[in-house]
Amino acid sequence: MSQSGSTLSITDIQAVSPALGRYAQEDVLGDLWRRPQMSPRDRSIVTVSVLIARNQGFDLKHYMNVALDSGVSPAELSEIITHLAFYSGWSNAMSAVAAAKEVFAERGIKADQLPPASPELLPLNEEVERQRATGVEKNVGPISPGLVTFTTDPLFLDLWQRPALAPRDRSLVTVSSLIASGQSAQITYHLNRAMNNGLTAEEAGELIAQTAFYAGWPNAFSASAVVGEVLRNRPK
Amino acid sequence: MSQSGSTLSITDIQAVSPALGRYAQEDVLGDLWRRPQMSPRDRSIVTVSVLIARNQGFDLKHYMNVALDSGVSPAELSEIITHLAFYSGWSNAMSAVAAAKEVFAERGIKADQLPPASPELLPLNEEVERQRATGVEKNVGPISPGLVTFTTDPLFLDLWQRPALAPRDRSLVTVSSLIASGQSAQITYHLNRAMNNGLTAEEAGELIAQTAFYAGWPNAFSASAVVGEVLRNRPK
Amino acid sequence: MSQSGSTLSITDIQAVSPALGRYAQEDVLGDLWRRPQMSPRDRSIVTVSVLIARNQGFDLKHYMNVALDSGVSPAELSEIITHLAFYSGWSNAMSAVAAAKEVFAERGIKADQLPPASPELLPLNEEVERQRATGVEKNVGPISPGLVTFTTDPLFLDLWQRPALAPRDRSLVTVSSLIASGQSAQITYHLNRAMNNGLTAEEAGELIAQTAFYAGWPNAFSASAVVGEVLRNRPK
Repeated sequence: MSQSGSTLSITDIQAVSPALGRYAQEDVLGDLWRRPQMSPRDRSIVTVSVLIARNQGFDLKHYMNVALDSGVSPAELSEIITHLAFYSGWSNAMSAVAAAKEVFAERGIKADQLPPASPELLPLNEEVERQRATGVEKNVGPISPGLVTFTTDPLFLDLWQRPALAPRDRSLVTVSSLIASGQSAQITYHLNRAMNNGLTAEEAGELIAQTAFYAGWPNAFSASAVVGEVLRNRPK
Repeated sequence: MSQSGSTLSITDIQAVSPALGRYAQEDVLGDLWRRPQMSPRDRSIVTVSVLIARNQGFDLKHYMNVALDSGVSPAELSEIITHLAFYSGWSNAMSAVAAAKEVFAERGIKADQLPPASPELLPLNEEVERQRATGVEKNVGPISPGLVTFTTDPLFLDLWQRPALAPRDRSLVTVSSLIASGQSAQITYHLNRAMNNGLTAEEAGELIAQTAFYAGWPNAFSASAVVGEVLRNRPK
Repeated sequence: MSQSGSTLSITDIQAVSPALGRYAQEDVLGDLWRRPQMSPRDRSIVTVSVLIARNQGFDLKHYMNVALDSGVSPAELSEIITHLAFYSGWSNAMSAVAAAKEVFAERGIKADQLPPASPELLPLNEEVERQRATGVEKNVGPISPGLVTFTTDPLFLDLWQRPALAPRDRSLVTVSSLIASGQSAQITYHLNRAMNNGLTAEEAGELIAQTAFYAGWPNAFSASAVVGEVLRNRPK
């Protein structure tokens, strides 16, 4: 990562706000990214997801490079963008594709490092999928049959089963994007899914701290209330 | 429309995500845009509204061209941008003006194809307006007299009565922008108004499917709950 | 300010929408900015905060210049950006730094006009801080210890106590950014704090009218409901 947490140099930041330069070095780089409660790899997944979800191109290439330097593979980055096409909108993904294309070119990443369009999918957990489909059919079926159809396929029978991004990481991307865009109402389902997929309570808490810096304190506080409710309601 | 649903070519998309290229061709272009529950013209109005509401310049010119190719007139596109200046913020509209100026120049669209600044307005439904004004005065009057004033004029006595965009289409733009920016609390009033202006329940449901792809699944799911409540509460 | 309320000229706006040109001149410049309920200086603080919170670069330099022409000092503008790094996300602030760097260079604003990285802080109101810290520890402590830590320092023991932006103005920036991003749940605490710091009820109401134009009517209406509740519950 740069010495500033941004495409901007620390000198550029100081030319407008010496204080922001200090916060960048002391709090963001010196503290947040070094906390042991979440790995730098996971922090980079969260941060890239937040930036794509909020359509913030300014530092996106910078943090895609941070991710690739922190153990995220090109195939995983490709899947993160693909996943967020559905969770944060088609045009957010297109902007991210344009940024990633440049990053891949600069690093010499070739097509053979990317996941195929139609790989063999992960085995489906039929019971989890049955519950999900039943709930959506009941709640959304009478209102938008089209949304029910597309949610089943391509979303849950295809995208979520693609093997190049682990289900736990896919959930991490999803929850990060929900927090980043203030969509508290959708956090409950996906945080439970994330924890069923292996995300720990400590990681969930630290995810909130990471999003505070990159999506703003208000989104983190709003998420905290919902995350607390999920944690209290999970079977011990 | 391009073969990719974006300014990016399908090859560009595949260079980062072969899967996203497949979803573009199979699901977005091959399925969503061809579904009979909503016309391509309406889908293009929804999509342009979503992009302006979310300030997403990346594919905006592309979808303005899709709209003009799908039966939206230059005058209607001009009114959509004007309408969204109020519903999604002044600066969103300014970005859209800059994009539309280029599109109009490229297509040779001239000033005489645009609606005048001060046309003869549509006749006002006095009873609908009286109810609206009474509700706003009661709820907002004691808090922000300025907002009450501006909501009456220029918003409801001027903008909504401009004849170059049908009230039903104006409602479609408004509801699309509300869904796109996650503003569920404002959907109830405007969806009822949209249906009073001629939007069908089937179109409302399909609008949600369209916004799922362009504003992300979470916004569509949050909207679905509110739309369902509106549909259940409308007189049969 | 320009004759259009934008980087775009009035002619550019009229080339896409003659109506929008009329609204710019009659309603935004001719009416909104001249209303006596809020000073042009405060309106410019609100508007710049809204644009940074929504990451809208298009007119940001324009309104930074409006702010500097309306009595906001370079030091205050620097602090507004720094403050919003925390309230609207790191990357929003980085985009704003890039814009402000250009504005400062164009106006010959030098480093000696900026607040130091580590100034002597304002005296802390221990009782207010104790209440805040207790509430956050209770609500967030069991969920995200990291968020609690960062909220205490650097947020409330450092950023909020920096002397180059008055607490009342810091609150104005915060509430504007909350309204602009639709985060109604966080308005209650910060509007009370703003009014304790000197914001009047009339200014709070006019703030909503200003954000209606720059963040869209739906955000203003959603905020109005919460602001009304705060006003009703404050001790007379």
